[in-house]
Amino acid sequence: MSGRTIKVYRDLMGANEEWAAKTRLLLEGAAVRMVNLIGSPGSGKTTLLEGMAGRLRGRLRFAVLEGDVETTRDAERLDALGVPVSQLLTGGACHLEAKLVHAALCDLPLDALDVVIVENVGNLVCPAEFDIGEQAKVAVLSVTEGEDKPLKYPLLFREAQAVVLTKTDLLPHLRVDVARCRRHIEQVHAGVPVFEVSAYSGQGFEAWLEWLCAAGARTQS
Amino acid sequence: MSGRTIKVYRDLMGANEEWAAKTRLLLEGAAVRMVNLIGSPGSGKTTLLEGMAGRLRGRLRFAVLEGDVETTRDAERLDALGVPVSQLLTGGACHLEAKLVHAALCDLPLDALDVVIVENVGNLVCPAEFDIGEQAKVAVLSVTEGEDKPLKYPLLFREAQAVVLTKTDLLPHLRVDVARCRRHIEQVHAGVPVFEVSAYSGQGFEAWLEWLCAAGARTQS
Repeated sequence: MSGRTIKVYRDLMGANEEWAAKTRLLLEGAAVRMVNLIGSPGSGKTTLLEGMAGRLRGRLRFAVLEGDVETTRDAERLDALGVPVSQLLTGGACHLEAKLVHAALCDLPLDALDVVIVENVGNLVCPAEFDIGEQAKVAVLSVTEGEDKPLKYPLLFREAQAVVLTKTDLLPHLRVDVARCRRHIEQVHAGVPVFEVSAYSGQGFEAWLEWLCAAGARTQS
Repeated sequence: MSGRTIKVYRDLMGANEEWAAKTRLLLEGAAVRMVNLIGSPGSGKTTLLEGMAGRLRGRLRFAVLEGDVETTRDAERLDALGVPVSQLLTGGACHLEAKLVHAALCDLPLDALDVVIVENVGNLVCPAEFDIGEQAKVAVLSVTEGEDKPLKYPLLFREAQAVVLTKTDLLPHLRVDVARCRRHIEQVHAGVPVFEVSAYSGQGFEAWLEWLCAAGARTQS
């Protein structure tokens, strides 16, 4: 023992975990749940949220935190539908980190909400590695992306508590076998619920909303 | 001046630049060009390469380096078509780095090639930040991803020397305005060539192949 003081530099990931833990306490105190939507660019996350705006009215009080590298386009789309929304800009980073999410949460009227939905930066890899204090990650995969993505990007599908397959209205025009895609999901995460939805036709939407409302209700008991 | 030796630890990005520089020397010496294909998961990069396999026979000698987080599925698809291909696995990382690409290049028969095409990990953000010693980055964007991606993920489109819009056979079934998408590309990178292709119908393929062959020919003069 030299008696000297040793400086400790905490790594970024450690700091992220601390902010995530603070967020969990904040959400628990307010009885609000947070869902972290993760999917590729163009997988239909914002359109899914647009489809939820009208259908959830009177059933679930939710706000959205929109994560993007640049632009406020997605927040503007939801704001136009009357959804309470804030835009989180990463300034180049490929994922959201817990500190930024925490700051945005503190500005939300949590008492008036059941669920906060975070739309992460469009990316199937990095966002799955960062805990932002959410109660559930949800993987969003467009059927146009092909059947093999759960095998090629397994971390997200392993971490997700639900998978939403979007743009199913396009299936008649694609060379994609949804049953095979479901088998791939099952292979990396047995038992995870999978919802096939089309935000345009509304098909399959109800089962996904029921899952989300059940997730929201779990905080109110 | 204390006379002491100061240890210098080079950051990872610096080391990456060194490997990229080595790769450029290697490629120049062999008169081979390298093209770095970057796009979202499921944007159709591998299908584009499959479509090129037959169409380039006798016109351009090319090999492929397939970048993926996990699995060798994409390399197997190209191998089945007789394309010389190696699989680069990042083991979780969301982009290819120059060192791994360099190692794989050293094992290719460069004397028998005009062009090496690298299919980067499916990701619109991170791969654009890493120089792998390529002569050109090419952005691959599926029309199913929507019109706004060039604005939301501008770095790649700014860096790219060409943009390939894929899956155009689906346009009749989408609410997507390709002219608007082109305006967004032009907004972030004026003058960059844009190719609209369908690997299934073959439509638009020839212009893209001509660009690629011209890129390959530039090394042979």
